[in-house]
Amino acid sequence: MIAANPERVLQDLYFLRSVGTYKTGVHRPTLSADDMTTRRWLAEQLQAIGHDAHIDGVANVVGLSPAVGRKLLSGSHIESQNRAGWLDGALGVIYALEAARAVAEGAGIRDIGVDVMAFADEEGHFGSFFGSRSLTGNLTDEDIDTAHDRTHGTPMREALAAAGLAGVPRHRLDLERYSGFLEAHIEQGDSLEAEGLSIGVVTSIVAIWQYRVTFEGVQNHAGTTRMPIRKDAGVALRKLCTRIEELFPEIAGPRSVWTVGRITLDPGAPSIVPGGAEMLFQFRDADPETLLRLEAGLQQLVDEANANGPCTVTLENLSKSTPAVMSPAIQDALDAAADKFAPGKHVRMPSGAGHDAQVIAQHMPAGMLFVPSVGGISHHWTEDTSDEDIARGAQVFVDGVARLLQA
Amino acid sequence: MIAANPERVLQDLYFLRSVGTYKTGVHRPTLSADDMTTRRWLAEQLQAIGHDAHIDGVANVVGLSPAVGRKLLSGSHIESQNRAGWLDGALGVIYALEAARAVAEGAGIRDIGVDVMAFADEEGHFGSFFGSRSLTGNLTDEDIDTAHDRTHGTPMREALAAAGLAGVPRHRLDLERYSGFLEAHIEQGDSLEAEGLSIGVVTSIVAIWQYRVTFEGVQNHAGTTRMPIRKDAGVALRKLCTRIEELFPEIAGPRSVWTVGRITLDPGAPSIVPGGAEMLFQFRDADPETLLRLEAGLQQLVDEANANGPCTVTLENLSKSTPAVMSPAIQDALDAAADKFAPGKHVRMPSGAGHDAQVIAQHMPAGMLFVPSVGGISHHWTEDTSDEDIARGAQVFVDGVARLLQA
Repeated sequence: MIAANPERVLQDLYFLRSVGTYKTGVHRPTLSADDMTTRRWLAEQLQAIGHDAHIDGVANVVGLSPAVGRKLLSGSHIESQNRAGWLDGALGVIYALEAARAVAEGAGIRDIGVDVMAFADEEGHFGSFFGSRSLTGNLTDEDIDTAHDRTHGTPMREALAAAGLAGVPRHRLDLERYSGFLEAHIEQGDSLEAEGLSIGVVTSIVAIWQYRVTFEGVQNHAGTTRMPIRKDAGVALRKLCTRIEELFPEIAGPRSVWTVGRITLDPGAPSIVPGGAEMLFQFRDADPETLLRLEAGLQQLVDEANANGPCTVTLENLSKSTPAVMSPAIQDALDAAADKFAPGKHVRMPSGAGHDAQVIAQHMPAGMLFVPSVGGISHHWTEDTSDEDIARGAQVFVDGVARLLQA
Repeated sequence: MIAANPERVLQDLYFLRSVGTYKTGVHRPTLSADDMTTRRWLAEQLQAIGHDAHIDGVANVVGLSPAVGRKLLSGSHIESQNRAGWLDGALGVIYALEAARAVAEGAGIRDIGVDVMAFADEEGHFGSFFGSRSLTGNLTDEDIDTAHDRTHGTPMREALAAAGLAGVPRHRLDLERYSGFLEAHIEQGDSLEAEGLSIGVVTSIVAIWQYRVTFEGVQNHAGTTRMPIRKDAGVALRKLCTRIEELFPEIAGPRSVWTVGRITLDPGAPSIVPGGAEMLFQFRDADPETLLRLEAGLQQLVDEANANGPCTVTLENLSKSTPAVMSPAIQDALDAAADKFAPGKHVRMPSGAGHDAQVIAQHMPAGMLFVPSVGGISHHWTEDTSDEDIARGAQVFVDGVARLLQA
């Protein structure tokens, strides 16, 4: 009988919250002293259940089960955003630890097992998914050589040396060991809470398509240039945004999101009609057809703006990720576990945020489980999930792991 | 017979363009070596016609006529914006010089005269209208002590010392000397050109009312926050702008202008729904009632936005200037002169830009004359006016001066 001990899960999460406490959240940036304290603590917990555990050269905590039979990989990230919440990342690490413990205890044998990892720097203090990319062979030494802390500018090599990791080899996943990967995470949105649900079984991690839209008009004197002859790039930008806000709800999928994150007017002076303007725009969806439809809509609006004038609009794609589809077999196992511990309280849903699972999913079947975020808040110290939801999530997660290992 | 010598005017303007030449324009920031060269040159021209001329402690060129009877004050600024046009300021200085010369030559006596000034730093390299404010007693020593060059950061005291002006007293206008002030300038807009006209007689210099509008929403994750629950401050800002663009044409005067010069989204990151946003907004008009109507309209839209939500909008006035009304008698004299040299080619119009005349107008009757700007362009090296329009403008200007002095 393999089952989670919810009380132990909560105690471990409370402990992690006590390291680098910030208000009711935590401040544990990657490679900080508090971050390293939690990584060493995790390695010790894993060693205590017989795992071969260490911190690798890019600060991944790597805990390998001694089991010889079927194995799953599980984990999340243990560092936090600056002055942010206590569960973002930590929840998935402790669920993975609990799964490893429950399997080790419950299976009573060394036949099956769970390898546990805390992926370094999912939160991007130094780069983008450095930990999981390193484990899957998608990170070069040069990537690390040139990385700097985005807050303080400290070179990553310097931060690694200060953490005692200079010269330590980076671990590479032995993909043959695993039948799949599981990651638990807080939802970071309000969908579960809004529908009164406890468990989300992730179907896919959405793709992000990012664009820079540039507007070129004519810079002029804000006092002497009559309104009819102005070519105000800021006005052109706002008109395009208005058209996006009109069109996108019509062509979007039910869970599509789109965001103008940054706007710049050039020269940005109170008494000058802006001759240039720029915005960063992105949309996200899990469905490739919807992504293509949104891009075509955006292009149509840009063409329309260029046809109408008086400014010139240029659309430039900055990046397009691919939706990461989660394994149907893992979704089925998590559904079955949720039917047992949260009947009628679970749903299949895409993930609007990025996670290490999207990196690992390129190499093995992967799945994700979500628990509710109170008020949909994350990346803020008020981020929270009820103890009841944390406990139920652990039960579903461990039961799902057991179903997959014993199938 | 008092009359302009258009050829002499053009030669003087060509000479000024040869000092600090930048492409077809000039680069003569206040107190630069080239700027001081032109100031010394101007003082010499004035001394040559018998004026008591010097450069005062804030770099104003002060040229006092030896006449004992009725006197007018005339002038503009001689420095340029960085890498900008050849006529902005210079035209008004040379017209004033030409008026002084023509009066000295034509009147044949020392009975009437024109004092000529080149006001320091109208273009605001160090401050706001420092030259004309100093001349009218509205500038303190502390204002100068704390001023720095906006491009290089050089303290103004240091720049004055380098120009040989440390310890030189600042001139103060003897208001009793003058029956009025006249300034000529390029229009810096395209109204004259668009209507095929040669001369604008300025009725007033518009007021500028400036505002900061702040939007407060909720910062959130751009992937996990569903569209219906977002409180995107950037969307709120763009909606208010759209409403302004709908309402203002209905309530504005025929020459009102309004401008959003700067937009900032907070935090301004591609994957974060902006929780804050700010814009700098200004409108200009010469009519106090129109200004009040525009402000009431803006307040109404802000109230409407707050009533509709979901973001909070705060409107803050940053400054309100008063329209500077030009003297009717001076307008009449310039009209009469224009009827002679540019019949059917002149119009009364407000000035959308600020000028030293608005400072001087607080102390004596003032008037302004505009000549066309090709394409409405100014503050750019392509700024230009046809030789024909420059010549005709000088004739009208000098004739207007003569009418006022001989009335």
